[in-house]
Amino acid sequence: MNDKGFKVCAYNRTTSKVDYFLEHEAKGTQIIGARSIEELCSKLKRPRRIILLVKAGQAVDDFIAQLEPFLEKGDIIIDGGNSHYPDSIRRTHELEAKGLLFVGSGVSGGEEGARNGPSLMPGGSEAAWPHIKEIFQKTAAQAEGEPCCDWVGPTGAGHYVKMVHNGIEYGDMQLIAEAYDILKRGLDLSEDEIADIFEKWNSGVLDSFLIEITRDILRFKDTDGEPMLHKILDSAGQKGTGKWTAIDALDLGMPVTLIGEAVFSRCLSSLKGERGRASKILAAPAREPFQGDKQQFIDDLEQALYASKIISYAQGFMMMREAAKVNDWPSMNYAGIAAMWRGGCIIKSVFLSDITAAYRENPKIESILFSPFFTKAITNAQPGWRRVIAQSTLWGIPIPAFTTALSFFDGYRAEVLPANLLQAQRDYFGAHTFKVLPGKENDHMKAGQDIHVKWTERSGDVSSSTYNA
Amino acid sequence: MNDKGFKVCAYNRTTSKVDYFLEHEAKGTQIIGARSIEELCSKLKRPRRIILLVKAGQAVDDFIAQLEPFLEKGDIIIDGGNSHYPDSIRRTHELEAKGLLFVGSGVSGGEEGARNGPSLMPGGSEAAWPHIKEIFQKTAAQAEGEPCCDWVGPTGAGHYVKMVHNGIEYGDMQLIAEAYDILKRGLDLSEDEIADIFEKWNSGVLDSFLIEITRDILRFKDTDGEPMLHKILDSAGQKGTGKWTAIDALDLGMPVTLIGEAVFSRCLSSLKGERGRASKILAAPAREPFQGDKQQFIDDLEQALYASKIISYAQGFMMMREAAKVNDWPSMNYAGIAAMWRGGCIIKSVFLSDITAAYRENPKIESILFSPFFTKAITNAQPGWRRVIAQSTLWGIPIPAFTTALSFFDGYRAEVLPANLLQAQRDYFGAHTFKVLPGKENDHMKAGQDIHVKWTERSGDVSSSTYNA
Repeated sequence: MNDKGFKVCAYNRTTSKVDYFLEHEAKGTQIIGARSIEELCSKLKRPRRIILLVKAGQAVDDFIAQLEPFLEKGDIIIDGGNSHYPDSIRRTHELEAKGLLFVGSGVSGGEEGARNGPSLMPGGSEAAWPHIKEIFQKTAAQAEGEPCCDWVGPTGAGHYVKMVHNGIEYGDMQLIAEAYDILKRGLDLSEDEIADIFEKWNSGVLDSFLIEITRDILRFKDTDGEPMLHKILDSAGQKGTGKWTAIDALDLGMPVTLIGEAVFSRCLSSLKGERGRASKILAAPAREPFQGDKQQFIDDLEQALYASKIISYAQGFMMMREAAKVNDWPSMNYAGIAAMWRGGCIIKSVFLSDITAAYRENPKIESILFSPFFTKAITNAQPGWRRVIAQSTLWGIPIPAFTTALSFFDGYRAEVLPANLLQAQRDYFGAHTFKVLPGKENDHMKAGQDIHVKWTERSGDVSSSTYNA
Repeated sequence: MNDKGFKVCAYNRTTSKVDYFLEHEAKGTQIIGARSIEELCSKLKRPRRIILLVKAGQAVDDFIAQLEPFLEKGDIIIDGGNSHYPDSIRRTHELEAKGLLFVGSGVSGGEEGARNGPSLMPGGSEAAWPHIKEIFQKTAAQAEGEPCCDWVGPTGAGHYVKMVHNGIEYGDMQLIAEAYDILKRGLDLSEDEIADIFEKWNSGVLDSFLIEITRDILRFKDTDGEPMLHKILDSAGQKGTGKWTAIDALDLGMPVTLIGEAVFSRCLSSLKGERGRASKILAAPAREPFQGDKQQFIDDLEQALYASKIISYAQGFMMMREAAKVNDWPSMNYAGIAAMWRGGCIIKSVFLSDITAAYRENPKIESILFSPFFTKAITNAQPGWRRVIAQSTLWGIPIPAFTTALSFFDGYRAEVLPANLLQAQRDYFGAHTFKVLPGKENDHMKAGQDIHVKWTERSGDVSSSTYNA
């Protein structure tokens, strides 16, 4: 913010950190400091605009409680942490009831974004937006001449979008990890060879921050010349936002399967000891040397990664569409969300420009899969995607994200799914009833009716009210 | 209970239902009725044993509140509904604080189990068990000469096991639905031909209630002679217990992927309108006629279903193992749980006898996959399982449960997963640090240490504390 010409006052509860900051990073800038919350509030212009960058959870509420005595009507508290969106919904209502304004803003960009412009996803009290718009949009990363920041929506909408962003980030990372595993264990390539492939991919449809840093990581050697990757424990950590996304998808009843599998993959990776023991007992499939054209297979893999990524983003946007309905947010600005993610953040990519374009061309599009651009992209990717999955399945390389993406695609484009059998089973064992398929109505099976069949002579004629399945 | 010689008093808040029941189903039996809660309580021997069969949620608390004034120290309230286990944990503590005993019991069996003996999974106040053991074990279904009922554990353990049972049921149903879809759309078989296959499977390793009823459903014709399945809307309903299981797995950090995919598949099926529109736009893969040996493929499919089922149950038991730790339940009686599920319930099967045997042989086994029986079974199944997935992938038939099961298997038996790359990415963009792989320690990368690498010249040397990814 200081770099963009805004005057900033810094505060930290450990006042020595404020002193150190003023003497070092902030030296020679316009930044001023405060050693108490009272001092901080006394130094700010009205309406006061205070951004909290503290750990999500109780710390945010504690900080807000400390601020309140020194604030006046119309002052704005902005939470820039990774808060869970139901907390932001609650805080918006609580603070508005006291005459204050609240903004819950997603902030993504990691170390680099923090310094050079992040993606900012603000939501909450809409009356706050005119007071922070210029600061936020100038501070944010810029992509294709536009700020990676726009108003997302009411109450918890900003943090909701950030949560989905993080879930998608889990998915993108898992897809890249699977591609790496296939190249390494399937094609027996070295880290340097794989880095060259990622380098090439980074100038095509996969051009993105995560592909770029993966290339750097693959090339990074320890002091003894061995790839650093060989020395890193294969147990992935997580701090909860991917899990929140998967749980929210389940609660909404939306099939956001790729993020779900990405989260579960991290869980499986963390069972390191158990996996080690299992690896001694459970045999790998018989392995035949790869007979096909390696370059063709690598090109297929690029398409598999691209197609799976299209599915993951389609799922993420489906989820936001449903969340907007459930939380009574007006239809969200999907083009704006995609545009915000084009720069500054971990998932920034060329791909997001295409999603932005798809939503700008038709803001009411049901899914990005319905846009001509992506319909064509996934149709083209389809043969290679299937070949990669078939081959990796025979190799015995785990590809949960690739396969769930394809299963979603095949299910989504299926006019008829075998869920008719599930409904028949539920009616058979639990008298749950079913509905007739449109076009198949007759005198004893009418449209809209709850139908129960006496499947066997043992079946009763009572339909279920309390049995859950 | 009446059939087994126990005297039962029936009560319903709609007293006309009590009258009707006594005049009809209960006529000529020892069953007596009550028209008020006070009357019910006055008619019961002490300690009173009252089983609630009401809708899960608020209704259970309301009923308990109505009962309390008429109960005495040591009386037992049993909740036989599908309550969410955290409610049963809470109710056990609340009622024990008042000197009463609480049992939360899973009950499974649908229409048929309700009448002919269900699977009963009681947990809660252990002091209640001696007073209800005989009633429960005689009323429960019997399998291989043993009652499908045993004490599960403290507080919410009974309802927890029931929840996992229901999740597994979702998984089994989804696997069967995928097998049906493959036979129907992959091999172009008719419902009658598929019924013959299920009939045959029902005399092998897949012998189970769900396979048996699927055979019946496949053969069932509407009055015009068309298979009833053709007329059933392919939108699967759900009432929440599968979703609870998937959410709990995410909360525990356990990769229970098959149940997760089964729940998401029901979600996708319910987007019927959107799927219909997508099916007009998104093309199927080019389809070549099946060239292989049909019978071999059908045998492979049987193995695919069997192997996926082994994975699903392995995941379910892993989840219970972790839940026991987290909820401070003593190690659960896994052999007993498998034994309880052998009869009476929806997932009853020959397969569960094999799980019972595996846990009886070695109660401390880490996973059923470590038992010689299942190690051998899944090793034998592996080639066919992979062939079915590769073929269905090329056909374009969605198989989310089959594929997630195989990915879990391939991940579980992988000594090294590409999660090292995830950790490197997290450290690159968010300074999250990683740990060194055992065996790769050196002077600057020590065991147990949180290591942060300066991946590029742009990287800082501060590690992350609040950024979540």
